[in-house]
Amino acid sequence: MTTELYAKGLAIFEKIAGATTPEVIEKFNQIHPDLAKTVVEFPYGDILSRPGLDLKTRQIVTVASLVALGNALSQLKAHVQGALNVGWTEAEIKEVILQMAVYAGFPAMLNAMFAAQEVFEQHKK
Amino acid sequence: MTTELYAKGLAIFEKIAGATTPEVIEKFNQIHPDLAKTVVEFPYGDILSRPGLDLKTRQIVTVASLVALGNALSQLKAHVQGALNVGWTEAEIKEVILQMAVYAGFPAMLNAMFAAQEVFEQHKK
Amino acid sequence: MTTELYAKGLAIFEKIAGATTPEVIEKFNQIHPDLAKTVVEFPYGDILSRPGLDLKTRQIVTVASLVALGNALSQLKAHVQGALNVGWTEAEIKEVILQMAVYAGFPAMLNAMFAAQEVFEQHKK
Amino acid sequence: MTTELYAKGLAIFEKIAGATTPEVIEKFNQIHPDLAKTVVEFPYGDILSRPGLDLKTRQIVTVASLVALGNALSQLKAHVQGALNVGWTEAEIKEVILQMAVYAGFPAMLNAMFAAQEVFEQHKK
Amino acid sequence: MTTELYAKGLAIFEKIAGATTPEVIEKFNQIHPDLAKTVVEFPYGDILSRPGLDLKTRQIVTVASLVALGNALSQLKAHVQGALNVGWTEAEIKEVILQMAVYAGFPAMLNAMFAAQEVFEQHKK
Amino acid sequence: MTTELYAKGLAIFEKIAGATTPEVIEKFNQIHPDLAKTVVEFPYGDILSRPGLDLKTRQIVTVASLVALGNALSQLKAHVQGALNVGWTEAEIKEVILQMAVYAGFPAMLNAMFAAQEVFEQHKK
Repeated sequence: MTTELYAKGLAIFEKIAGATTPEVIEKFNQIHPDLAKTVVEFPYGDILSRPGLDLKTRQIVTVASLVALGNALSQLKAHVQGALNVGWTEAEIKEVILQMAVYAGFPAMLNAMFAAQEVFEQHKK
Repeated sequence: MTTELYAKGLAIFEKIAGATTPEVIEKFNQIHPDLAKTVVEFPYGDILSRPGLDLKTRQIVTVASLVALGNALSQLKAHVQGALNVGWTEAEIKEVILQMAVYAGFPAMLNAMFAAQEVFEQHKK
Repeated sequence: MTTELYAKGLAIFEKIAGATTPEVIEKFNQIHPDLAKTVVEFPYGDILSRPGLDLKTRQIVTVASLVALGNALSQLKAHVQGALNVGWTEAEIKEVILQMAVYAGFPAMLNAMFAAQEVFEQHKK
Repeated sequence: MTTELYAKGLAIFEKIAGATTPEVIEKFNQIHPDLAKTVVEFPYGDILSRPGLDLKTRQIVTVASLVALGNALSQLKAHVQGALNVGWTEAEIKEVILQMAVYAGFPAMLNAMFAAQEVFEQHKK
Repeated sequence: MTTELYAKGLAIFEKIAGATTPEVIEKFNQIHPDLAKTVVEFPYGDILSRPGLDLKTRQIVTVASLVALGNALSQLKAHVQGALNVGWTEAEIKEVILQMAVYAGFPAMLNAMFAAQEVFEQHKK
Repeated sequence: MTTELYAKGLAIFEKIAGATTPEVIEKFNQIHPDLAKTVVEFPYGDILSRPGLDLKTRQIVTVASLVALGNALSQLKAHVQGALNVGWTEAEIKEVILQMAVYAGFPAMLNAMFAAQEVFEQHKK
C-alpha cells in the first residue's frame, strides 16, 4: 500500500513535522484509511518535493498563507513548528505574521500571533 | 504633508512597484487625499521596512498571502511584478503559486496562476 | 406568533436536526426572541422546503458548503448529524469532506474531517 | 510522461469538462509544463475517481463549494457546465445555488446565479 | 403571488435601490422566477424592515460587511449607491471603506475604494 | 518609545477597550515588543482617530465587519464590548449581527450571536 510517491512525500513530511510525524500519521489513520495517504502523497510527495524552490522558502510561504486564510490555526501551529524545524527563527516567523496585518487584516494577524506564541513557548521548554 | 514615515515607506514602495510608482500614487490621489499616505506609511514605512527579515523574503510571503486570500488578483499582479523587481524568477514565483493549491485549493491557485501569467507575458515584452 | 411559514420550516428542521430540535430552538430563544423564527422560517420554510430538489441532496450540498466556508465547524457538526439523519452514510460524508481538499484546500478539509469524526463517534454510542 | 494516474484522472476530467477538455488542457500547458498534470492527477485521478460516491453527487457538491467560496466564478462556470454534462438539470443546479444564500450569504448566491446563467444561456444555443 | 412580506420588503428595497429598482427586479426575474421574491422578502421584508435600528445605520453596516467579505464588489457598488440614497455622504462612506483596511486588510480596502469611486463618479454626472 | 501617534491612538483605544486596556496592552507586550505599538498606532492613531466619522459609527461598522469576516470571534467579542462602551445598546448590536445573516450567511451570523451573547452576559454581572 506504500507507494513510491508516499515514501517520497513522507521524507519531506518528516523534515517539517519532525518528531511528531508518527502521532500525526496515526491520528489521520484513526479517522480515515486513506487520509494519511492523501495528505502525504499530493502535498508533500507531489508539490513540496518539487525542485525549483528550496524547502525553507516553501515553508515560510506556507506559514504566510495559513495566516492569510485565517481559519486554519491548528495547521498554522503545526507549520510554525515546521518553520522552526527547517531553520527559521522565532523572530523571523513573527515578522512574517506581523506583515500579514497589511494583507489579511489585524484580526487574522493577531489570532496567528497568539497561536504561534503557544508553539514558541512549547519549543522553549 | 510628507512625513518622515512616508519618505521611508516610499523608498521601499519604489523597490517593489518600480517604474509604476508615480502612476500608482497618482491613482490613489485621484480617489482620496489620504489614500497614498495610508498605503505608503503603514504597510511600507512601518511594516515592510522593519529589520529582521529581508525584503526579498517579505515579497514572496506577500505573494503567497494574496494567492491564499483569493480575492485580490489586482494586488497579486502588482506584487508578482514586485517579486520580479526584488529578484525572484518567474519559475520560483510559479512554484509558490502552485504550492498554494495545497492550502487554499485549486480554484485560488488557478486564478492566481492565470493572473500572474499576464504579468510574466507583459514582462517579456 | 407561530406563522404558517414557521410550521412548514419546523417540519423540515426536525427531519435534519432530529431529536436535538427542542434544545436547539431553546438555545436560540435564550439569546434573541426572533432568532428561532429567523433560522426556521427563511432557511427551512422558504428554501429547504422548496420543490425541485430532494432533501437528501440538499443536505449533502449544505455539508459541502460548510466545509468550504471553513469557519463554521459548529454548524458543520450539526449538519453532518443531519446528513446521517436523512440517509447519508458516514463513508459517503467522508468522501464529500475529502473531496473538498481540492476546492477549499487541505486545512479546511482536515478541520472538517476532525469535526465530523466527533459526530460519527457520538453517533456510534 | 503520461502516468497511469494521469490517464485515470483524464477519463474523469473528460466526463465533466466534455468537449472543452482539449482546450482546457492546452490552456494549462501554455502556462506551466506541470499544470495539466497537477490538475488532472490529484483532483481527478486521486479524488474524484474514488469509489464510495457517484460522480453525479460529487459534481453537485463541487458546485455548492464553489458558490460558497465566493471567489471562484470562473471555476464555478466550468463546473456548472460539468454538472449539466453528468446529468443535473438547470433547475436543480439553480436550486443548489439559491440554497447557498442561507450558508454563504446573498452576495455569494447572486454572483453565482449570474455566472451560472451565462452557462445556461450558452448551453441553450 | 405578491405577498404582504414582499410588499413590505419592496418598500425598503426602493429606499435603498432608488430609481434602479425596476431594472434590478427585472434582472432577477429573467434568471429565476423566485429570485426577486427571495431577495426582497427575507433580506428586506424580514430583516432590514425590523424596528430597533434605523435604516441609515443598517445601510452603513451593510457597506462595511461587503468590503470585509471582499468578493462582493457588484453588491458593494449597489449598496454604496444605497448609502448615498439614505443620506450618507461620499466622504463618510470613504471613511468606512478606509477603516476596513484595519480589519479586512489593504487589498480588500483598495478594491472596495476603487469600486465605490465608480459609483461616486457616476453619481456626480 | 512612546510616539505622538501612539499617545493619540491610545486615547481612542481606551474609549473602546475601557477598563481592559492595561491587560490587553500587557498581553501584546508579552508576545512581541512592537505588537502594542503596531496595534495602537495605525488602527487607532491613524484610522479610528480620523475626523469625518464619529467613533460610535466607526465602532458599529467594525462589529459588522468582524461578523462578516467570520473567523475573528475573539476580536468580535472585544469590539462588542467596545460598542457597548461607546453607547450602543445590546438590542442594537444584536440587530446588526442578525442583519449579517443576509450578507455573510447564517453560520457567520449564529457564531457571532453566540460570541456576543457571552459579552452581554458578562456585562450584566
